[in-house]
Amino acid sequence: MEIKKYIIRSKHYEGCTADFENADVVLFGAGFDGTSSYRPGSRFAPNSIRNEAYYFQEDYSPYFQEDLKNKKIHDLGDVEIIFGNKEKSLDRIETISRFIMQNNKIPVCIGGEHLITYPIVKAVYEMHPDLHIIQLDAHLDAMDELFGEKFSHGTVIRRIYDLIQKPNHIYQVGIRSGSWEEFQFAETHTRLFLFNTINFINSIDELSNKPIYLTLDVDVFDPSLLPGTGTPEAGGIFFQEYIELLRKIKQLNIVGADIVELSPYIDSANVSAIVASKVLRELLIILGM
Amino acid sequence: MEIKKYIIRSKHYEGCTADFENADVVLFGAGFDGTSSYRPGSRFAPNSIRNEAYYFQEDYSPYFQEDLKNKKIHDLGDVEIIFGNKEKSLDRIETISRFIMQNNKIPVCIGGEHLITYPIVKAVYEMHPDLHIIQLDAHLDAMDELFGEKFSHGTVIRRIYDLIQKPNHIYQVGIRSGSWEEFQFAETHTRLFLFNTINFINSIDELSNKPIYLTLDVDVFDPSLLPGTGTPEAGGIFFQEYIELLRKIKQLNIVGADIVELSPYIDSANVSAIVASKVLRELLIILGM
Amino acid sequence: MEIKKYIIRSKHYEGCTADFENADVVLFGAGFDGTSSYRPGSRFAPNSIRNEAYYFQEDYSPYFQEDLKNKKIHDLGDVEIIFGNKEKSLDRIETISRFIMQNNKIPVCIGGEHLITYPIVKAVYEMHPDLHIIQLDAHLDAMDELFGEKFSHGTVIRRIYDLIQKPNHIYQVGIRSGSWEEFQFAETHTRLFLFNTINFINSIDELSNKPIYLTLDVDVFDPSLLPGTGTPEAGGIFFQEYIELLRKIKQLNIVGADIVELSPYIDSANVSAIVASKVLRELLIILGM
Amino acid sequence: MEIKKYIIRSKHYEGCTADFENADVVLFGAGFDGTSSYRPGSRFAPNSIRNEAYYFQEDYSPYFQEDLKNKKIHDLGDVEIIFGNKEKSLDRIETISRFIMQNNKIPVCIGGEHLITYPIVKAVYEMHPDLHIIQLDAHLDAMDELFGEKFSHGTVIRRIYDLIQKPNHIYQVGIRSGSWEEFQFAETHTRLFLFNTINFINSIDELSNKPIYLTLDVDVFDPSLLPGTGTPEAGGIFFQEYIELLRKIKQLNIVGADIVELSPYIDSANVSAIVASKVLRELLIILGM
Amino acid sequence: MEIKKYIIRSKHYEGCTADFENADVVLFGAGFDGTSSYRPGSRFAPNSIRNEAYYFQEDYSPYFQEDLKNKKIHDLGDVEIIFGNKEKSLDRIETISRFIMQNNKIPVCIGGEHLITYPIVKAVYEMHPDLHIIQLDAHLDAMDELFGEKFSHGTVIRRIYDLIQKPNHIYQVGIRSGSWEEFQFAETHTRLFLFNTINFINSIDELSNKPIYLTLDVDVFDPSLLPGTGTPEAGGIFFQEYIELLRKIKQLNIVGADIVELSPYIDSANVSAIVASKVLRELLIILGM
Amino acid sequence: MEIKKYIIRSKHYEGCTADFENADVVLFGAGFDGTSSYRPGSRFAPNSIRNEAYYFQEDYSPYFQEDLKNKKIHDLGDVEIIFGNKEKSLDRIETISRFIMQNNKIPVCIGGEHLITYPIVKAVYEMHPDLHIIQLDAHLDAMDELFGEKFSHGTVIRRIYDLIQKPNHIYQVGIRSGSWEEFQFAETHTRLFLFNTINFINSIDELSNKPIYLTLDVDVFDPSLLPGTGTPEAGGIFFQEYIELLRKIKQLNIVGADIVELSPYIDSANVSAIVASKVLRELLIILGM
Repeated sequence: MEIKKYIIRSKHYEGCTADFENADVVLFGAGFDGTSSYRPGSRFAPNSIRNEAYYFQEDYSPYFQEDLKNKKIHDLGDVEIIFGNKEKSLDRIETISRFIMQNNKIPVCIGGEHLITYPIVKAVYEMHPDLHIIQLDAHLDAMDELFGEKFSHGTVIRRIYDLIQKPNHIYQVGIRSGSWEEFQFAETHTRLFLFNTINFINSIDELSNKPIYLTLDVDVFDPSLLPGTGTPEAGGIFFQEYIELLRKIKQLNIVGADIVELSPYIDSANVSAIVASKVLRELLIILGM
Repeated sequence: MEIKKYIIRSKHYEGCTADFENADVVLFGAGFDGTSSYRPGSRFAPNSIRNEAYYFQEDYSPYFQEDLKNKKIHDLGDVEIIFGNKEKSLDRIETISRFIMQNNKIPVCIGGEHLITYPIVKAVYEMHPDLHIIQLDAHLDAMDELFGEKFSHGTVIRRIYDLIQKPNHIYQVGIRSGSWEEFQFAETHTRLFLFNTINFINSIDELSNKPIYLTLDVDVFDPSLLPGTGTPEAGGIFFQEYIELLRKIKQLNIVGADIVELSPYIDSANVSAIVASKVLRELLIILGM
Repeated sequence: MEIKKYIIRSKHYEGCTADFENADVVLFGAGFDGTSSYRPGSRFAPNSIRNEAYYFQEDYSPYFQEDLKNKKIHDLGDVEIIFGNKEKSLDRIETISRFIMQNNKIPVCIGGEHLITYPIVKAVYEMHPDLHIIQLDAHLDAMDELFGEKFSHGTVIRRIYDLIQKPNHIYQVGIRSGSWEEFQFAETHTRLFLFNTINFINSIDELSNKPIYLTLDVDVFDPSLLPGTGTPEAGGIFFQEYIELLRKIKQLNIVGADIVELSPYIDSANVSAIVASKVLRELLIILGM
Repeated sequence: MEIKKYIIRSKHYEGCTADFENADVVLFGAGFDGTSSYRPGSRFAPNSIRNEAYYFQEDYSPYFQEDLKNKKIHDLGDVEIIFGNKEKSLDRIETISRFIMQNNKIPVCIGGEHLITYPIVKAVYEMHPDLHIIQLDAHLDAMDELFGEKFSHGTVIRRIYDLIQKPNHIYQVGIRSGSWEEFQFAETHTRLFLFNTINFINSIDELSNKPIYLTLDVDVFDPSLLPGTGTPEAGGIFFQEYIELLRKIKQLNIVGADIVELSPYIDSANVSAIVASKVLRELLIILGM
Repeated sequence: MEIKKYIIRSKHYEGCTADFENADVVLFGAGFDGTSSYRPGSRFAPNSIRNEAYYFQEDYSPYFQEDLKNKKIHDLGDVEIIFGNKEKSLDRIETISRFIMQNNKIPVCIGGEHLITYPIVKAVYEMHPDLHIIQLDAHLDAMDELFGEKFSHGTVIRRIYDLIQKPNHIYQVGIRSGSWEEFQFAETHTRLFLFNTINFINSIDELSNKPIYLTLDVDVFDPSLLPGTGTPEAGGIFFQEYIELLRKIKQLNIVGADIVELSPYIDSANVSAIVASKVLRELLIILGM
Repeated sequence: MEIKKYIIRSKHYEGCTADFENADVVLFGAGFDGTSSYRPGSRFAPNSIRNEAYYFQEDYSPYFQEDLKNKKIHDLGDVEIIFGNKEKSLDRIETISRFIMQNNKIPVCIGGEHLITYPIVKAVYEMHPDLHIIQLDAHLDAMDELFGEKFSHGTVIRRIYDLIQKPNHIYQVGIRSGSWEEFQFAETHTRLFLFNTINFINSIDELSNKPIYLTLDVDVFDPSLLPGTGTPEAGGIFFQEYIELLRKIKQLNIVGADIVELSPYIDSANVSAIVASKVLRELLIILGM
């Protein structure tokens, strides 16, 4: 593959042993955290998540009664990030995402910070003009500028809106933080589901048969469960609520996904990476169904 | 102000930029932890809480849809504690609290350990003889003596009772720890609401129109959410329950408040200080209403 | 006592001051963690749990309104583990358990890893041929072999089944992890209660009048509450659910118990050991009833 | 002072209680770490260093037998950094440095990352065209570009060279890391003293009567003593060597100084901030002589 | 023994298995840290030091080519501290020290903070009126009062001077911190050896044939080696220098000793307790010679 | 390559980009820590060391003035360890080492615990019957059995002696810990250089023209510099001494090497892995000369 020059070798995520050609889902890491304003470190997430999965070696989901080994998932390795060069780094993520899309596979990315969602969505949106977004997140990430920057992990949803330019295509779920201006924006441009997933689950039928991109910012979880993230917010969801959500989401047509903002070294007990690794396993299980 | 000689300069709590003269609420720090028996460190709480608020820069509450910047709150700085001299340190806290009261403002203190509540209540009680106390706490703190000491973070509520000398004026909420003797005392002298806030919320109308002092010991929260406290107790409340409680409390007449027993360095991921900072923001939001 | 040669001196667990002769319950530590595959350290648990209980000095349970000091519990100290020699170490645990049983007392062991349950159950089973097991755990621990080993913390329940050789005598509660093969085994050999304690509580009457051994793997708790364990699993129970369970269990005939897999140093805030110490206190309170 | 609008209130560094007008030395914090590529966090250094000095309350230097309280040093507070806006942040640092210089006082800055040295040197250089630089550092910081960026903590010395444009005016001391290209640059443009301070001390007379700016990157110290820095390098100096160096430096004409790259939260034992606070105390002692 | 009522059971320090009656040296713990002003936690030191020795199981000193198992040392357990009651706690330490002295054995205490040295010295001084003190320490600990307190870990040497009332009987070695007043006191009342052990070793013959009490504050070591102490001071000694010192000290007549101010939990890597355990082993080796 | 089935993919160690065919040196990881008795975790070392090298991106050694990028070194990835199966794991390490030897390349292994040295030495010894060993280590590792086990990280040097069966072929350097029995063994069977490298450097000419295997246990370093190891020993060497040693060693004929016993997670500041990564870089620089 031509894109190999942008890829650096990594461990495989446990159980993701399909060849690229045979895979339905293609996993890759994108450890970019260049715009993180407070507690960076999500660059280490792809490595941590794969390591935890490797040492745990638990491929079977008792929630969905499926084994990851039976899914057709390929782990491509990591996009080589050019530290300090946001544009080139995002370009590479976009190129790889497009390559995966063109091969009719579902891209799943381990970030990195939330800004990495933008280039993936851009590539996915080319193939799916009616793309809808599900954003699981504590924060709206809908500022127009952060510190004068248009492209940042605090503006990524606003930029995705600018790309799609259609109201009510972005579903913001679990939100519990943002500025007054962001909430004003959300009211008129997105579908907003505050604090938890209950109301979203009640509305999920709206998304039937739509192509969906799922972006999961791990700070949607309560910081008691997942302290290892840059901007933890009290009042989040727990694992059981996530599983209940997945039971609904698995009926949707997911065409791309990511898990972002894990900053594993912040959590010295390493539970955050362990939890995130399980969060990803369950997500991969339903994607491969 | 004459009291300036007892104040040391500090960062402002984010959004608390009113002048003293115009303020409705006056915030100050009192990092005294001299009687902490097990894991001290609450002396660092005022500095940590203000820092987290500064770096997060999130003044808007999606729970109450209000912005802290629009409230009239002044941050006075920290009482200069004389380490090792309990009496003088408490005296200073009392002097400053009285000064704030005499200027018809609401004092809100960031402790420090729980004993700092006593001098503030003393000053508030002078102006409000029918003062009622709401204590959110895992522990009764109602021993008559701790290691032969009458004034300690384990006896503070007993001393406040001695001051007020009226039964059923202290509401102890979320309690899940204490000695047999303390529970005996509580039964006959205070209003006791074990384990969570449900029964208290059902009784909250009793407090309508009363002047209320709210003391919030952060160990009322579950240690999974807030490990950074000296004597963590399993089985506490989470953030959502706190917000629901505030929705009720905001209708009461709060005349003073504190947040105590955060020991930020115990929690290496720093989530405890981040959560406490949000806990304080929401409290200030309702006080300024 | 002849077994003294296998015992090393330790602090007493707070409140467990009865003499051996007068005791109903005998506590001992067994800090063996020789087969822990991922994050060892449970060898330090007996020391940590006793220390936390000592520094907290809270003997009174507000949940059961009983004081540990009024129970007849003896703390024997720790079994001297021979590091690297699994067979001899397990033999010693068995010998001590048998000695306690022969003196008509209830053995309660602080592990160590889960494999230490096997020698205790062996001794208890000799005296109670109709022994039933309640296993509170995130993992099935029912593999036939782990890395070619028959005796391991991942196979201990399978070995206990081999010992008892009767279906439906092992109640597996709170389970949320295992291989496909283990779940197949559980379906036909044990009573399986997934994810939480609700269904088990509804079935608890089946166990009335049976002799019960209770093994409590602390990873049954959510890792947000108890991160200090070798293989944390998101989606566990919290303290309140544990207390509700104990309210039911106290009516059963518990003839032996253990608490295993606490790895205290993983949790730098030390909350895990503090919580485990309270978990043990409440367990001892109901055993001494 | 007009510059007050760029200053945020902070605690005073212990013992630095002179008024601005009477001060010989003016201390200020500049917690900018926007270009840190690996382990950011030096934004927290000004707050940590002042806190440690406050809690230790040790103003007397047994090395120089002088007391900081007897020096005329003013602590101005912190430059308000605009996170994400490098240009404006550096401008503010320059403005404040120039203001201090124009009042004929010595500016001493607590960084922040090494890039903050550039705007201070710029202001100092205006008043001292023959300015010489002493750089205590593990790294050359002399790249022409880092990730395409001209202004970065890895290029700061190169930019200072571009400003001064005279060879042998920059003394690089304690260096033990850099690229081949940087070492080539240093050979022809700077005075390079590898690994320790011995050869520099032998050459220090070259600097007599020159105006000197001293920039102290804390990674010049061995990481065993000061692990809390972004890019630790084995093989550094210890405290005694630093004191011996100060004994020589105090005879020079220091007209400005900084201490940079402390990232206090990396070191959970907090020794790094405690050591850095002492490093600063000794530096201030000799500056005030 | 009558004193047993003040003793709580503990693990033995590895290799210290002599009976009390046969012992030349008697070890005991005194985990009192009630006056620690900054970072308490030395109460945990006796437990930590014994644990590390137990898990390491290294009784042989390659420095002195002796085995601890061949020495006659008894480990008595820990003095039961009454938290919050300084007077009674110190009384108990004195009583136990006197008991050991009266049985013609050498008391060696694991603190606790430095104040515990006072009651031991008091008991030792009764039997040895010409007692000389060797204090290995970073701090003078010679204030007359600390925060109005006469008895504190910052005044202990001053109180010992008041007891002995003879100049030049206290040898202060490795000192690198104190107030101007304390250094004034030391100049006229004690023998002061700044920064390291070199000058002391040159003067050690002065102490031949004198009865010596050795008090070792672990902050005499460099904080890079031993960060786990309440008030770390850069510029300390390393292990090799300590061993060289012991080679000289072993020729003196040591009649009592202690090791104080280890605060093990501050150092998350636990190296401080491991080092302190070795420091104690080597000390015990030379005492048993 | 047929051995590929035993290799799992990993990141490359920074700068080691040669193809296998062209390489002079072949690096591989062997994260086996199955016999570690106290604080395991060296299984994580290969991943940590490669990550640190990747994020630091410093290929140039100012000590040897060479760039790693100019050396011909291939990074093969990691041997797949079968957790819990010591025999098979060691077999795989041996197979891979033999393969590298048969291709006339120098194997360099990142452990893992010290036992991994045995299978590599076995493969190297087949090709070099006069093999000499340089062991940099705090511990003798020369017990005949540890807990009844013949093959363990505490017996590895004894087993290597059994293999070679020639006295004075093993040079034990930096040793400062062991049992009396091990020191007896060393006296008559190995060349022993206690505490530091000075005497060894004086004797290094003995090894001219001999084929040398260099095994570097990172606990030879002082725990202040490298706390992240299972059994830290005070009194070790620092980085400068290591560099001086390498200046001598580079003239020898090294035919194989390893770096073992880094347990990176023990050190929360991650300095240990950063230092170990530099230690390896310098070693690779001299091997490629």
